[in-house]
Amino acid sequence: MIPVNPDRFLQDLHTLRGFGAAGLGKGVVRPAFSEADIAARKWLAARFAEAGLTPHFDPVGNLFGLAEGPSLLMGSHSDSQPEGGWLDGALGVIAALEVARAARDSGGPPVSVVSFQDEEGRFGVTTGSAIWSGTLPLAEADALVDHAGIGFAAERAKLADLAGDFVDPGRFTGFLELHIEQGPTLDSTGGQIGVVTDIVGIRDMRITFDGQQNHAGTTPMHLRRDAFQALAAFTAEINAHFSGVVTPATVWTIGHVALHPNASSIVAGRAVFSMQWRDGSAERLDRMEEIIRTVASEVADARDLSLSFGPMLGLQPVAMDRRLFAALEEGARQVAPGRWQILPSGALHDSTNLSNLMPVAMLFVPSIGGISHAFAEDTAEDDLVAGLRVLAHAVPRLSG
Amino acid sequence: MIPVNPDRFLQDLHTLRGFGAAGLGKGVVRPAFSEADIAARKWLAARFAEAGLTPHFDPVGNLFGLAEGPSLLMGSHSDSQPEGGWLDGALGVIAALEVARAARDSGGPPVSVVSFQDEEGRFGVTTGSAIWSGTLPLAEADALVDHAGIGFAAERAKLADLAGDFVDPGRFTGFLELHIEQGPTLDSTGGQIGVVTDIVGIRDMRITFDGQQNHAGTTPMHLRRDAFQALAAFTAEINAHFSGVVTPATVWTIGHVALHPNASSIVAGRAVFSMQWRDGSAERLDRMEEIIRTVASEVADARDLSLSFGPMLGLQPVAMDRRLFAALEEGARQVAPGRWQILPSGALHDSTNLSNLMPVAMLFVPSIGGISHAFAEDTAEDDLVAGLRVLAHAVPRLSG
Repeated sequence: MIPVNPDRFLQDLHTLRGFGAAGLGKGVVRPAFSEADIAARKWLAARFAEAGLTPHFDPVGNLFGLAEGPSLLMGSHSDSQPEGGWLDGALGVIAALEVARAARDSGGPPVSVVSFQDEEGRFGVTTGSAIWSGTLPLAEADALVDHAGIGFAAERAKLADLAGDFVDPGRFTGFLELHIEQGPTLDSTGGQIGVVTDIVGIRDMRITFDGQQNHAGTTPMHLRRDAFQALAAFTAEINAHFSGVVTPATVWTIGHVALHPNASSIVAGRAVFSMQWRDGSAERLDRMEEIIRTVASEVADARDLSLSFGPMLGLQPVAMDRRLFAALEEGARQVAPGRWQILPSGALHDSTNLSNLMPVAMLFVPSIGGISHAFAEDTAEDDLVAGLRVLAHAVPRLSG
Repeated sequence: MIPVNPDRFLQDLHTLRGFGAAGLGKGVVRPAFSEADIAARKWLAARFAEAGLTPHFDPVGNLFGLAEGPSLLMGSHSDSQPEGGWLDGALGVIAALEVARAARDSGGPPVSVVSFQDEEGRFGVTTGSAIWSGTLPLAEADALVDHAGIGFAAERAKLADLAGDFVDPGRFTGFLELHIEQGPTLDSTGGQIGVVTDIVGIRDMRITFDGQQNHAGTTPMHLRRDAFQALAAFTAEINAHFSGVVTPATVWTIGHVALHPNASSIVAGRAVFSMQWRDGSAERLDRMEEIIRTVASEVADARDLSLSFGPMLGLQPVAMDRRLFAALEEGARQVAPGRWQILPSGALHDSTNLSNLMPVAMLFVPSIGGISHAFAEDTAEDDLVAGLRVLAHAVPRLSG
């Protein structure tokens, strides 16, 4: 086992929490390319250098701490949701840093570290690792805008002065990502470690209904082309149509809605909203997409609205690499006997993209109450350290 | 008939359109207390003074042009919707100005002019005239905030240096308001003038569903407390429950929606939205309110969400004063023989509030395509002048 230092690990984790601290619990506000995100990445680059790793920003804000020669890659992301927790992504980056520097100090195997950019999807879905892995062409990414209309190209330019080329994935032998579960499974069963079997696929599409903006007092109901009423009808229809297709593990979400002009005395002329769905089966994701497109067209036609679909961002379900999975499983046995289990990941991770470049595997620690993507997100420090120790056990098994 | 000057009237109307011009058609962006709204009011005050009227701002931004002694009051409002037309409110203010100055120049009866503030409801519903008429206490108004969270008290302070006391309504013998119809009736029947019989009542309430913000990938559908799904269910339920209660003239609108945190990868923890409904019967407005409150509670209980209702702003249906109505009717006969009709107002107007203070009556001219509260709002200039002429005929009938 690599002699990791839990205190140093926890201290760095709490220091990182200070960048974009929400002032509510341990919450952070550190979306991709925000001032807090950029400051955090510069701080991380300095930590990497102290650990004897070469800091390297690629053209889209992914930050690497590179060991010399071939190495295992470990990490996650340090950007957060608009209202995020302190561990989502940050845990995997700091755990990787601790393992890498402990390995280096103790003459262990070479480990490189990475913090990917915009995993939380301000511009898309796992934007930074999607670009590096080739699943999202850079030109396409540059055309993406966030919900405020700000472009990815303009935001990544903020780091242009520090940016080098994209890193050659060929130098890495595999990728390990430690992450909080972000769901209720481990917490509700008293589990301390989860070894991930596979990651569900996800699709995320922006849909727009265009109707007729008009006066809310003088336009009779039967003459209205109300974009919000269309959205409400679409929502009910989708729920009904999915019932015959989905499993209890399938999820779908309309989390972002923008009405235009969004005033109480005006019939909404336009509704733009996000439609996101996740499942372990690529076939089921396809069938859900067909239903979404069909129902949206039917709702638009029935109400004389026009309909448009934004670019769909998607990631296929991914199975973990057997060799890496086995190493994590053995580590879990050592560190948390009787308190570990295997489980799928309902959440999307950078590992999904990296599976296109190299073998990947993931490890989970519990989320208290299953809460994540919220200021209240937290995990017991014993569990955080347990996750670190599993990695410290697994890494030596993977060298040579 | 008072010898009004149509060219001078149209010229002033087009000049007013320059304040907050949207640059799209004749559209204007002049919400209450915006820079454009304040500049327009200062320009109006100067026109009033030129016409021999005494400009007077009251404490909430209502601008009067006062004739000496007892007088008829005429006018409307000069604020606009976030995306408004050039005639909504502005027509009534400039027509009143033209009649008042033509009457003064020709030794006619004394006419005072008014432009009420925030008729469009940035903060409430016909805020300025509601305060003046006593239907909205000033302390209550000062606590109102717009959808951006800006308070009425802070906004009205922008005009504090110009503000005098509230005007004594006792000095006015009645109120006449010329307005565009903002609906399809006159335009679709080739009518040029509409004499209003009554104004429908309106209620407008902010409703909030509070659920649980959580990760859109790891929270199973059956464990979600999704505030947007509650809003969609509420919308469908309301439509179903209203069907047995409403008439073809009844309207209801959800025009403003704000989800929190409003991100595609997060189950919405909160939905705040506007519920507005209008009808000519006070009893029906009551029954609809009961349904809204009951359905919202049922939806919240069924999904384990908490529910809160904002302050409800409301105005009762109002019948026009017979004497004023008769004078407008006679004017319509003279100016537009065979091309005028009587009709109710589906839109809300400042006249509703003024009916608490003095006799009121309203006159409509057509809206092309029935379009209003949009940049495309327009009316043929012949019809605008016809409306002016009807007022010029009616006013002498009302003096003494």
